[in-house]
Parts: sequence; structure tokens; C-alpha cells
Amino acid sequence: MPFVYDFDHKHRRPPMDLKALLGGKGANLAEMTSVLGLPVPPGFTISTDACRDYMHGGWPDLLSGQVGRARARLERKMGKRLGDPADPLLVSVRSGAKFSMPGMMDTVLNLGLNDASVEGLARQTADRRFAYDSYRRFVAMYGRIVLHVPGEDFDGLLESAREQAGASSDAGIPVERLQDLVDAYKKIVRRHTGRPFPQDPDLQLRGAVEAVFRSWNGARAVAYRDHEHIPHDLGTAVNVQAMVFGNRDDQSGTGVGFTRDPATGAQGEYGDFLVNAQGEDVVAGIRNTEPLSALKHEFPKIHAELLDIFARLESHYRDMCDTEFTIEQGKLWMLQTRVGKRTGNAALRMAVEMTKDRAIRLTREEAVQRVSGEQLEQMLHPQFAGGGHDVVTRGLGASPGAAVGRAYFSADDAAAAAGRGEAAILVRSETSPDDVHGMLAAQGILTARGGLVSHAAVVARGWGKPAVVGAEKVRIAGRSFTVGSTKVSEGDWLSIDGSSGDVVVGRVELSDAEPPAELQTLLGWADTIRKGRLGVRANADNGPDAENARRFGAEGIGLCRTEHMFLAEDRLPIVRRMILASSPAAEEAALEELRVAQRTDFLDILRAMDGLPVTIRLLDPPLHEFLPDLSELAVKKATTGLTKQEQALYAAAEDWHEVNPMLGTRGVRLGVLKPGLYAMQVRALMEAALERVDGGGRPVVEIMIPLTVTREEMAEARRWVDEAVSSTLSAAGVRRTRSRLKVSIGTMIETPRAALRAGDIAQEADFFSFGTNDLTQMTFGFSRDDVEGRMMAAYLDKGLLARNPFEVVDADGVGELVRLGVERGRAARPGLKVGVCGEHGGDPESIRTFAAAGLDYVSCSPFRVPVARLAAAQAVLELQAKAGPARKAAPARKAAPGR
Amino acid sequence: MPFVYDFDHKHRRPPMDLKALLGGKGANLAEMTSVLGLPVPPGFTISTDACRDYMHGGWPDLLSGQVGRARARLERKMGKRLGDPADPLLVSVRSGAKFSMPGMMDTVLNLGLNDASVEGLARQTADRRFAYDSYRRFVAMYGRIVLHVPGEDFDGLLESAREQAGASSDAGIPVERLQDLVDAYKKIVRRHTGRPFPQDPDLQLRGAVEAVFRSWNGARAVAYRDHEHIPHDLGTAVNVQAMVFGNRDDQSGTGVGFTRDPATGAQGEYGDFLVNAQGEDVVAGIRNTEPLSALKHEFPKIHAELLDIFARLESHYRDMCDTEFTIEQGKLWMLQTRVGKRTGNAALRMAVEMTKDRAIRLTREEAVQRVSGEQLEQMLHPQFAGGGHDVVTRGLGASPGAAVGRAYFSADDAAAAAGRGEAAILVRSETSPDDVHGMLAAQGILTARGGLVSHAAVVARGWGKPAVVGAEKVRIAGRSFTVGSTKVSEGDWLSIDGSSGDVVVGRVELSDAEPPAELQTLLGWADTIRKGRLGVRANADNGPDAENARRFGAEGIGLCRTEHMFLAEDRLPIVRRMILASSPAAEEAALEELRVAQRTDFLDILRAMDGLPVTIRLLDPPLHEFLPDLSELAVKKATTGLTKQEQALYAAAEDWHEVNPMLGTRGVRLGVLKPGLYAMQVRALMEAALERVDGGGRPVVEIMIPLTVTREEMAEARRWVDEAVSSTLSAAGVRRTRSRLKVSIGTMIETPRAALRAGDIAQEADFFSFGTNDLTQMTFGFSRDDVEGRMMAAYLDKGLLARNPFEVVDADGVGELVRLGVERGRAARPGLKVGVCGEHGGDPESIRTFAAAGLDYVSCSPFRVPVARLAAAQAVLELQAKAGPARKAAPARKAAPGR
Repeated sequence: MPFVYDFDHKHRRPPMDLKALLGGKGANLAEMTSVLGLPVPPGFTISTDACRDYMHGGWPDLLSGQVGRARARLERKMGKRLGDPADPLLVSVRSGAKFSMPGMMDTVLNLGLNDASVEGLARQTADRRFAYDSYRRFVAMYGRIVLHVPGEDFDGLLESAREQAGASSDAGIPVERLQDLVDAYKKIVRRHTGRPFPQDPDLQLRGAVEAVFRSWNGARAVAYRDHEHIPHDLGTAVNVQAMVFGNRDDQSGTGVGFTRDPATGAQGEYGDFLVNAQGEDVVAGIRNTEPLSALKHEFPKIHAELLDIFARLESHYRDMCDTEFTIEQGKLWMLQTRVGKRTGNAALRMAVEMTKDRAIRLTREEAVQRVSGEQLEQMLHPQFAGGGHDVVTRGLGASPGAAVGRAYFSADDAAAAAGRGEAAILVRSETSPDDVHGMLAAQGILTARGGLVSHAAVVARGWGKPAVVGAEKVRIAGRSFTVGSTKVSEGDWLSIDGSSGDVVVGRVELSDAEPPAELQTLLGWADTIRKGRLGVRANADNGPDAENARRFGAEGIGLCRTEHMFLAEDRLPIVRRMILASSPAAEEAALEELRVAQRTDFLDILRAMDGLPVTIRLLDPPLHEFLPDLSELAVKKATTGLTKQEQALYAAAEDWHEVNPMLGTRGVRLGVLKPGLYAMQVRALMEAALERVDGGGRPVVEIMIPLTVTREEMAEARRWVDEAVSSTLSAAGVRRTRSRLKVSIGTMIETPRAALRAGDIAQEADFFSFGTNDLTQMTFGFSRDDVEGRMMAAYLDKGLLARNPFEVVDADGVGELVRLGVERGRAARPGLKVGVCGEHGGDPESIRTFAAAGLDYVSCSPFRVPVARLAAAQAVLELQAKAGPARKAAPARKAAPGR
Repeated sequence: MPFVYDFDHKHRRPPMDLKALLGGKGANLAEMTSVLGLPVPPGFTISTDACRDYMHGGWPDLLSGQVGRARARLERKMGKRLGDPADPLLVSVRSGAKFSMPGMMDTVLNLGLNDASVEGLARQTADRRFAYDSYRRFVAMYGRIVLHVPGEDFDGLLESAREQAGASSDAGIPVERLQDLVDAYKKIVRRHTGRPFPQDPDLQLRGAVEAVFRSWNGARAVAYRDHEHIPHDLGTAVNVQAMVFGNRDDQSGTGVGFTRDPATGAQGEYGDFLVNAQGEDVVAGIRNTEPLSALKHEFPKIHAELLDIFARLESHYRDMCDTEFTIEQGKLWMLQTRVGKRTGNAALRMAVEMTKDRAIRLTREEAVQRVSGEQLEQMLHPQFAGGGHDVVTRGLGASPGAAVGRAYFSADDAAAAAGRGEAAILVRSETSPDDVHGMLAAQGILTARGGLVSHAAVVARGWGKPAVVGAEKVRIAGRSFTVGSTKVSEGDWLSIDGSSGDVVVGRVELSDAEPPAELQTLLGWADTIRKGRLGVRANADNGPDAENARRFGAEGIGLCRTEHMFLAEDRLPIVRRMILASSPAAEEAALEELRVAQRTDFLDILRAMDGLPVTIRLLDPPLHEFLPDLSELAVKKATTGLTKQEQALYAAAEDWHEVNPMLGTRGVRLGVLKPGLYAMQVRALMEAALERVDGGGRPVVEIMIPLTVTREEMAEARRWVDEAVSSTLSAAGVRRTRSRLKVSIGTMIETPRAALRAGDIAQEADFFSFGTNDLTQMTFGFSRDDVEGRMMAAYLDKGLLARNPFEVVDADGVGELVRLGVERGRAARPGLKVGVCGEHGGDPESIRTFAAAGLDYVSCSPFRVPVARLAAAQAVLELQAKAGPARKAAPARKAAPGR
């Protein structure tokens, strides 16, 4: 089994399809080398297979030989040898997993230098300073990463050398001091490891490869994979590549370039570069960079060559690419490329524009798949509301959206504050992978240094978290910062705008997002794709919400919770009178008052959703939710005493008190005990619907029974509803069969039994709607109120649950019940309409589960409707792709050129 | 389609197998007539098909013609015609459903009499009095049942006629008064119905048949079927049979006979008869009957003939039979037979004895199937403890077991008292089907009149309810009774012994039952049958319970709830210290104290169950169960204030308070938050087990994790347990692999998700135990604490649930999860041991569901273990029978003789 592949290896399939084997970086290096013929420094990739074998059983026996032979081939290609005292080859050793994990794993540069070869390098380059600077960097990097020497030890020495030399940057340190530094560094290594710094290039290489393997299981990498839901057993590949030097001279440089603007999606190159620098200097954000466009003046030939490469990359990858390049003494080398990360706005704009780009010709189906639900959400992020706030400074808008929180100056402090429930803004000079937990916990990120591709910017964009970077006027000192005369201390409020880069001291009010014009285009395409396959409705309980939902593109109401109407301040006393009623007449009178009130509620909703289905769920919560708190009444009774009215309420609260209200007398059970309640609600609804019909409206009413567990129960509830519908119609002199009113009667499927017995229940139900929130509670035995704090945190932390099942529906357990419910319901009643109205209805991954189960629609909160429309279309496309090429809407991948 | 079958119709299959078509009575009449050739008055049966058609669409078109032709055949056979003025034929019209519903439906006797034929009957029998007495009875019965005239109207007239005649019984009323009575009865009918009493026998017959059909849906019949779980759509057959008269003269009589004693199972005939009477007189218990043995002296030839018939019936039916017979002027007629109802004791004795009976040769497998779980339970009913109680009177012990309750004198009052939660004894002169609801609600029944086959006796035995009947010294007056000088008023305490017939005023202490010697024989056979197929364990939480369970035949402990040990008075303060612990050290110290205490508990249980598996469930309930009530503390805080200790408890109670504790932080979730807790329990257990091993014992330990929902959770819990086991063993210097200690680690399956994902979880579990109580709560969304009162009553009442799913496991919903769990668990881990430890484990019908699902054992409370052993054997036999004759243990049904 081969573990090692040269970049120019002839693979049977396009290398970019071999990311699982070669890692993303290795696959793209091979693609650029062997398919596109771009100027890539030669090298080879050690596969992820080797890493997995290493993790299970240590260094694979066959690996040393294969690496040795690959090294020999590389040395032949370059005409140089590692460690050669005359003309040494230097290599970089970099990680590269299947999924991009930027900065999470380790890299070693300048490998191959030793006490002898550094002299060869000095001679060959006629640049002694360069040689010793490279050796100094190598010893420090190797020492830190492979030999676990604390990096500060090296940094401290470097700083004093710089100070002694009176230099403003490392470049000012004279060569003699660099030589001294190398000696001092080697002593540090000896002190820490008990052995001299390894001089044998073979040992160096093996050490570096093992360090990269090990870094797969480093704490940072594991935490990142947990957050990104990347499996832990994939392993990383290792790329060994001939070094080229952007730090040779002023005809050298290094940069990061995007084929389009990853923040806005605008066409044209975008990026940063630094003259006379190595790549790490750009990414670390330590030196402020120049924009890529400046290259045009400083290196016009290189600039033209780069633009040509960018065009070839875009047309080849059919997407925006992210590259790293180095100029070595006037020659351009491509070190890396990949499909670039982007903001939601950029993703949207590119997706739409690339359908018109002749070199790319994206189909609409592909375009729809280019924008993720998370990106759409991020696009819909809030912004600063209005103007008038005092901008204390402005940095680079690195990740859009506005955030408000209290300032914290370390990742630990920000995470702790978030743990206490505080909104935090993490303020750092610059960020590093060690800060990831704090960045994750914070509402937004502010850095004083670094550009748009600095660590802070890249990570924040990936997570859709607002970030302002490179706000150079910010001076951080301990747990506070100053901008001019303004001082902000830990815990002070801060507001940032990740689009404009504005930083405001204090709390700025936020407003809704204003997504770009391309959004409607893309959502229109998404609607076409999912039409007739997966509908999107909204959950709304009143007229304004329903109007809002319709504006967002909802195709009806999937869940109108009538209890919200009961809890209104003016209704509650009537509801309580109904509960306390001592006679049927008194109960009837209270119900009558409620009927009049509910009728208005229903009228507003039906008006807003005219012509679209509106699913009204009859009363669901246990009655004690409408009564005062028992414990409070008990205290009052024991202290000031209770009024007569309170005594009655106390008795009722005791009577209806439940140990586990979630599993108690609620939903249709309430209907069984108080059938007048449901009849009242149906009468109010039918009166509202009739009024709509009289006014020329087209109400489409779906009456939904909550919490059904048996067919008999559903049949009984159906009888009540049917009777109330008929009596209301006949009271109004309307014949049901002739009415323009469409009324169907269905049920929530929210208990495991209802899902299992869906075949029985479907015989009495015109439609099903899965209440996946309650279904999750009962399937897991998780009371959301009780487990989502301490317990869920512990479970996610220990990996006992991969996700919070209330956020992403549990595809294995709850998902199986949904699939069974759909299957059995439709077997009993072909064509049964089935939807979902839990909060999961707005979550893209859950939508995928629901689409695969064959649901007709999802329903979610109004503001998530756009996300659901997009995710629904993507789910439909995925299912079509799975169903086989015959049904695929998108054309097959464009053949790679030159093949 | 034929609706009508003569008794001597040649059926293709033995008539007794055609009960669904002919009803039980019709099938047995046909069997006696056409197979056994017994003296049965001719007649025909209108099938249940006809009744079902009638219920759906009214009187079937074809039925009139078929009944007419059958009537003509009957008239030819008898040489008499219905309504013939010269020599009339009289018929009875009786219901007869597939399942016996004694007294629940209607009967009409003497049909065919009218103003003309009564004179013919008088001439033919030369007994004018007999003829008019029959006519009088017919008009009243037909009036009441077919024409819905209130029976009291007739009864009142009869009583005054008796008084006017100065007669002690109806027999003393002179013929002229009877003639007057007939006229008066007919006037009552005319007044109530507006029409004259029908004279046309055709009309009479059709009216009677329709009345019987209708009585299937009478309130009594529906209530009875609900209680007995008989489907409502079966319908009843109707038997039309030539009348024979036990009330012709003193050479006539009527009786009820059993082939063995239905109360004790003793061999030899048993029953009651009355000279010169009709059947209803015996059953109603109005006249006190003579024992069947008296027949030997009064009617020696008949007695011999009857014994011969009894022998033939027993050998034909291979069981004890219950018969009705009439002697008409010295000739014996068999009116009915069926396999007789019996007490548990009798069922047991007969089952064992019939295996030795040469005419019957019951196999042991058949014997085991002859005793129901309910009968066994009844047999294990409590008895009066010790002596010394003052027996105020003694009646007939009609249904064994002792009962204690407050006296109530009407069925309604007894039912109302039971509804209030009181124990009631229903005291009546005699009972009728109208009293059924009160009998059902009462703890026991006491009647002043009637014999062992009176309504009260038969019904009470059927339900296993203690009953004393015919306590003739009891004089009831309104809401009290007197026995001599003792007066017992409504609400006074009363104790009865349904075996001895003793009646005691006041509350007698009850002791455990002493089942007959045959019990051990039969249970031994049951054990042999179920051996290796379905084990029986007990749920026990301490040494004495475990010892008790072993005596009852438990083959291990299926569930030891360790929280019961925590709640002991001396442990609770330690548990609270553990919860309140402010430092790991304080928590550790409290756990250490608990460990020492638990060790002793475990030692006792392991000793009692030496050599048998003991399943220890680690702590399950939420922590707040060990803390004081939050509401009480709140009141105390607001009034007298809290001590410092109470303040700490209040804070903890608030911290651990849950909205739905059933679905909260309990079970393994607690373990995740406080892993030291489970480790402590395992250490205590292992130390106890090691002590047992040192003392020569053979502990078999199964450690069970509660409330698992994911594989990862189970793996984590397994790690804790494994570590604690290993560390305890190594601390004791024992090598785990060499130890005689058997330890396995498994999990409860009590959430729907655990059942669905059993395939995952089984990879980490050595065994499963279904907690069907919690599984039922979560599958239905029923909190047992909350729904079992008001809601469950309404659901059962309205038929929304057929059973209380906490008593009988829901085979469709929860049962499917059990089946899936077993199937998936075993697919992942072949041979996985699976049991059930919910309360359902002791319910015979649930055991059937569990056996079918392939469970290895059931576990139930110790006193139900014998019932479970029997039910498990029966379930195994049923499964074998279903699996096909090749695997059947019992021989095929014996061929009917003469065929």
C-alpha cells in the first residue's frame, strides 16, 4: 500500500477528488502540478492512511522506505540534497487534512538546515544573513513544534537581540547576532531535551512528520473538529515541499490572494502581500500588509502572471479560489490553492454572478448549493440601527454583522463571561489558535492588529461572527484599552460593526439586516427547485407575525398556537373564570367570552394568509399554566392570607397541579376533560373564516389536535370538531358541502406512540404535523426546561451527545420515528399531507432529515423562513442526486482541461 | 347464506368449535344433540351473523323465511304447532354469545301462548292452573323484555294476588286469580304500548328474537364486555327451543348441575335443584334449593341417568361441565351445558387430578393452561388472620378469599364509596345483573338469599371476589341489617370470609393465603415447561424481600432499586451532606459513609440470592427527591425563617428543582454530573460480593445503568463501573480474571430512544432490562403521577384506551418498542440477555407480550412470582402452539366419540 505520492504522480482520478487520501492541501498541490501545470515547488504528500496507521500502531514499517525514496526523487528533481554542506535543499513540512482546519495543526519550515548546510546555503545565496536568519527560524520552529520547547524562550532571546542591535524589525539584526542566536537557541534545545539539536536531515524529517501527525490530536485541533463536526478519525496528510523564499531580498515576497473579494464577492483579485517576508508573517498579522493590487506597480509581470493563474483556477475549480504564493527573486511560485472561504454576502453574490460567467457557467441548482443556511443567516445578521452613535475608532470590517457586549481581554475571561450568560466582546492585539474558545464564546471580536486574512478575520468569518480587525489605534494594556483619551475597562460595554469596521463604546441599538439584492434571485431559484417537493411555512400566532412570515416567503402557517391568545393580559381573567367555573353555565359563559376574543385573533391571521393554509392548533398547555404559581400562593397564605378569589385560585392550582406537566393533562387530554373548550375554539375559528368568505377571502383552515396517542382519541376529537364546524355553518345558514371554506382536521404527531401507531391515527386524520420538540423530549426522556443547562453542557462536553438534539433533530432516534410515522400514515391514507412544526423546521441539517423522510413541508419561525427555503431546495437537490444521475438537475462536473 | 341451524344440523366441524357462529349455548346444544345424542328438547339456533347483520342494517331480508322454515321443521318434529288452540307448542327464546355473559342478555320463555292456545295447553295437560300460570309468566316476561313494560307493574299485581289468596308462594294462587292476573297484565301492556298483547305466534317470535338481538347492546351487556374485554362487534346468537316444564307437577323439577364441585374441585356431582319449578327460580335464588345429591333419594332413576350424562360430558369435553336440566313428569331433559366456571382452588385441583383421570388424561401442558393467572391470584388471596374474631353469622362460602370493608346496601352506594376510595362490602338480599357495577366496585359481597349458583355466587367467583351468599339470618331493612340483636348500619365495618362463609362485624386482620397442595405440583410443571424459555425473577430492594422472593420461586433479582437504601432515615442526612458538599473532599467523605452503609444492604441481598443473578440498578431518581419540599421551605422562610442548615437545603432544593423531574437529571445523567456516586455504589457492591466469595458464597452480580439514551453514555458509564470493579478487586488483592465473582454490566431500556438505538447500545451492554413503566410514560407522554386519576378514568370510560397501559403493557406501541429493542440488541450482540423489570412483569397478558418478544425473563414483585411462573409457562405453550404442531407439547384435541 503506497503511503507517499509525489505532486506530479499520475492519479487515476483528478487529484482534487482525492482529498480523503491526500488532504485538501495535497490534493490541490497535485491538481495544480499535474493537471494545471502551474509553477509549484516540487514535493510529495504522505497520505492520511499513513497518519491513521500511525495513530493506531505507531510509525508504519513501510513508511520510512517510501519517504526516503520520495526524498531522493525530490532531491533529483531539484538537483540538491537535504543537508548538503555545498548546496542544500530546504523543505517545508505542512499538515493538510481532508477538511480545512486553518492554523489548527503544525508546520515546520526550512527543514534540512544544520551547522554544515547553513554554510552551504550562505555560499549558494551569497547571503550569509539570509542563511542564518533561516537557520534561526528553523531551530526555533522545530524546537517548539517537534521538540516541545516553549516558544517564549526563543522569542525572548530574539527580542533582546533586536534591542541590543537597536533594530526596529528582525531585518535589522546583524548576521553575527543571528549566529549567536542560533547557538543560544541550540543550547535551549539541549537544556530542554537533554540532547543536541538534530543535525541529520533524516531525523529532522521524521521528527517533523511525526509532529504533524501528532498535531491531529492536539487540543486545539480536537476542539475545532468538535465545533465543526469533523470526524476525529480522518487523520491528516503531510506535505513535504521544496522551500522557496519570499524573504531572500526585495525582489522576493509572499502573499495571500483570492480570485474575488471573499468579503463582498466583488469580481477582481483580492488579498495582501509583503515584500521580503515569509508566509507566516502575512497570516500572523504581525506586519501590516499591502493590498494585492499594489503588486501591479511593484511587480507588474508577476501581477499579470498571477491574474492569469487566478483566471485558470476559477475556470478549473468553477469557484472562487484562495491561494498562497511566494515570489523568490522575481519568480512566482504557487504554494497552495483551495476553494476560498467567504462571507454569506460574498457567497450569495458569487453564486448568482457565476451563473452568468462564461468561464464558469454555474447552473441555478449549483448556485443554490453554493450558499449555506449558516451563511444566509449571517447575511440576515443585525446591523447598527440608525446613526448618531459615536464611533471611537474604525478597524477593518472582517466579518459582517454587528455585535454588542462587555469587553474582555483574554479568551478565558470571555469564555467565562459567556458561561455566566453575559454577552462578551473579545478584545485582543491579535488572535491565535489558542484563543479559539474565547472567540467562539464571544458575540464579536476586535483586534488591534492584522488584516482581512489574519487569524481573527478568517475564523470569525467562518463562524459568521462579527469581527473588526486591525484597529491600530487601540492600545491594550492588561484588562483595559485606550483609544486616544477614551479608556475601556474589562466589563465595559462595547459595540462593533463587522461590515464597516466601526467600534463604539457603549451599547448601540441593533436593527434587522438588509440582505443584498441577489438574495431574492437565489431564493426564487430555490423555490423553483423545491416546488411541489418541500414547502415552507411559518409558525405564527397573530396577524402581524403572519404578515411578516408571508413577506419572508412563507407558504402558509404550519403552527398557530392558540394558547398565546389565552395568555394575553385581558384574556387571562376570563380563562381563569372558565377554570374556576362551579357550574356548566358559568363555564359556558366564560367560554363564550373567549370565543368572541379568539374570533378576532383568527380573523387577523386568516386575512394575512388569505389563500394559503393556516394550521390552528387547539389548546395545548396544561391548565395550571393559566393559574398563579402554587408556591407563591402558599407563601401568601402563610403570611398575609388569601382573598376569597385567591383561595379559589389556590384550590384550582392545587387541583390542576402536576408533577410532570409535560406528560400530564394537556393537549387533547384537556379536550377530553373539557370538550366545550375545543368546540368554542372551533366555533370562533369558523366564524372568522365565514366572515372572510363573506368579504371575498379564501380562507384555508387546518384544525390540528395536539398530543394524540390513540386512534380512538383522534376519532373523538374529530367528532367534536366536526360537530362544531357543522353547527357553526348551519347557524350561519351555510351548507358545508357547498361552502367555499376548506376545512381539514389533522393531528400533531409528538409522542413516540403516535408515530408508531400512525397507521391507526391516519385513518381519522387529514394531515399530520410532527411536533419534533415534544417528540425529542419524550424519545430521549429529556425535559428541555431541565436538561438544557448543566446537563446538556456536560453531555456535549464529554461527547455523550454529538449535538444538542433540540437544535438539530436526532436523525437516528427521533428521525426514525418521523420516518416510521410518515411511512405508516401514508400506507393507511395515501397522499396524507405531513409537515413538521417544531423549531427544527428552520434548521438546515434537520430539514435534510425531514426531506429524506418525505415530509411535504417544514414550518419555522418567520425570520428563519428564508434559511428554510434555501435549505429545503438544497435538501431536494441532494435527494435527487442520491436518487441517481437520471434525476439529477445539475450537469456532471465539467471535465478538467487538458485531459 | 344460512342464518339458521337446527340443533341436529350436520356441521362439517364439531359444533363446539363453532361458537363464533352459533354462540356458546347453541354450539353446546348442537354438540349434545348431534354428537352425544343426549336428551335435548329440539330447536334451532339463529346465528351471530344474523345478529351482526341486524345491528348494521336492521332485520335481514332472508331471515324471516329461514326462521319460518326452521319453525315448521320444529313443529313437525314435535307434532305440535305454535299457538295451536288444540295442542300448542311452546318455545323458549334465549341469547347465547361466543363468550359466556351470564344473565347479561335477555330470555323469553313460554312463547307461543295466546288467549286460544292457553286453553289448548290446559286441556292437553289437564292442568288449567299450570296453563294460566305459564301464560301469566309469558305475558309478564314478554311485556318486560320485548315491549319494555316496567317489571314492577307486573310484580306488584302478583304480590297482591298472593296476599289476597293468603298464599306463601305463587303455587298457592288459585287458577281463577291467575286468569284475572293474565287479563290485568294484558291491560298493563295495552296501556304502555297502546296496542293489545300480540296473539300471533309469528309476531311473538320475531319480537322475541329482535329483543335478544337488541339486548347485545344493552347497558349491562356493554358494561360486562368492557370489564371482560370482550369485543363489542361479535353479536349474539338466538336459540329457539321447545319448552319442557319443570313446573308441571311434583314429578317435575329443574336444576343446575356441575360434574365436579366448582368451588373446591372435589370429584362428584354438585349443584342445586328445585321440585316443581322453572329454571329461573333456581338461578334467581328466590327459593332455597336442595343439593343435587338429594336427587338420589327423590328421583333415583333420573339421578343415575344424570350421573351417566355427567360422565359422558366430562370425557367428551375433557373438563368439568356446568349443566342446566329439567325433569318433566319424570323425564330428564338437558337444556344446556358448557365448560363450567370455577374458583381458582377448584381449577387447580381439577387440573392436577384430571391428569390422572383415565377418561380425561389431561397432559401436564394442558393442566398448566387450565388455571388462569387471575385464578392463581384469587387463590393467593388473603384469609382471616388467626382466630378470636366473633362470627356473627355464617352463610355459604361462595367465592374464596376474605374481604374487609364498610357495609353498603345498594350497588350505587357501594360504587360511590369505592369511588371515594373506601373499601366497601355490598350487602343485598340477592343480587341481579343490575347490581353488577356495585359488585365490581366492592371488596366483597354478602347476600341473605341464594345458593352457590345464585347470581351473586357465579359473578363473584368469575371475578375472584370474596362472597358469602345465603346468609339467611341477615335481615335487611333499608340502609342497615340485623342478625339477631346485632345491628349493622351503612358505613359500619364488616369482614367476610368467602371460603368459610363467616361474617364478622368490624375489621378482621387478614393474613396471607394458604394455597392448596396442588399449587406446588402445577407450578413445578409450569417451571419445567418454561425452563430455558422464560425465567421469572423478583424485584426486591432488601434481604427480607429477597428471601421472600426466593421462597415464592424467584430465579434471581431482576431489579434492586438502590435509592430505597438512600431514603432510609439514617441515610438521608448523609445523602444530603453529599448533595450540599461544598468541596470534593466533603462530597468524598459523605460518599464514603454511604458506601459502608450500602455494603451491608448488598450483603443481605446477595446472601439471600446466593448462586442466582442479582441485578443492582445504580441510583436513578433525581437528587431533589432527597431534599425537603421546596414549597414547604418557602413557606417556612416567609414565616418562622430558616436555620442555616435549612438555608443550605433551600438553595440546593432550588438548584436541583425540576419542572418535569421524570424527564430531568436522573439515572445515568446523575452519574455524568456526579461520577463519584456510581463509583461508590459499585465499590460497596463489590466489597459485599467479595465478602460473600470469602465466605464460600457464589454471588452473581449484574450492574445496571438506568435511563441510557446513547451508546456513548453507556460506554462512559461502563468505564466508571469497570474502573470501580477493578480498583476494588485489586485493593482486595484479587485478580479479576481469576475471581469466582461473576459481574456483568448492562442497562435499563426505558426511553423510546434506547429501544430504537438498541443496536448501538448493545455494543456496550452485557444485558438489557426493559423498564416498561417509564417506557410507557414516555411512549404515551403519560406521567403516571398525573394521569392515573381523573384523566385515565375518563379515557377508560370513553373507550379512548382499552386498558390502563400501566396495568397491561400496550402491546401495539410500547410492545413494538420492546420487540424492536430485543431484535436490534440481539442483532448487534447475539445472545444478549434481555429481561423486563417494570410492574408489567407480573401481569399475565403483559407476560404474553414479553414472551412473544423473545425476552429471557420477567421480574415482578415477590408475591406475584407464582402468577408470573404460571403465566410464563402458558405464554411459552401458546408460542409453541403458534409455531406449529411440530413443536407442540400438548397432543391434538381428542377426537369426538362416534365420529
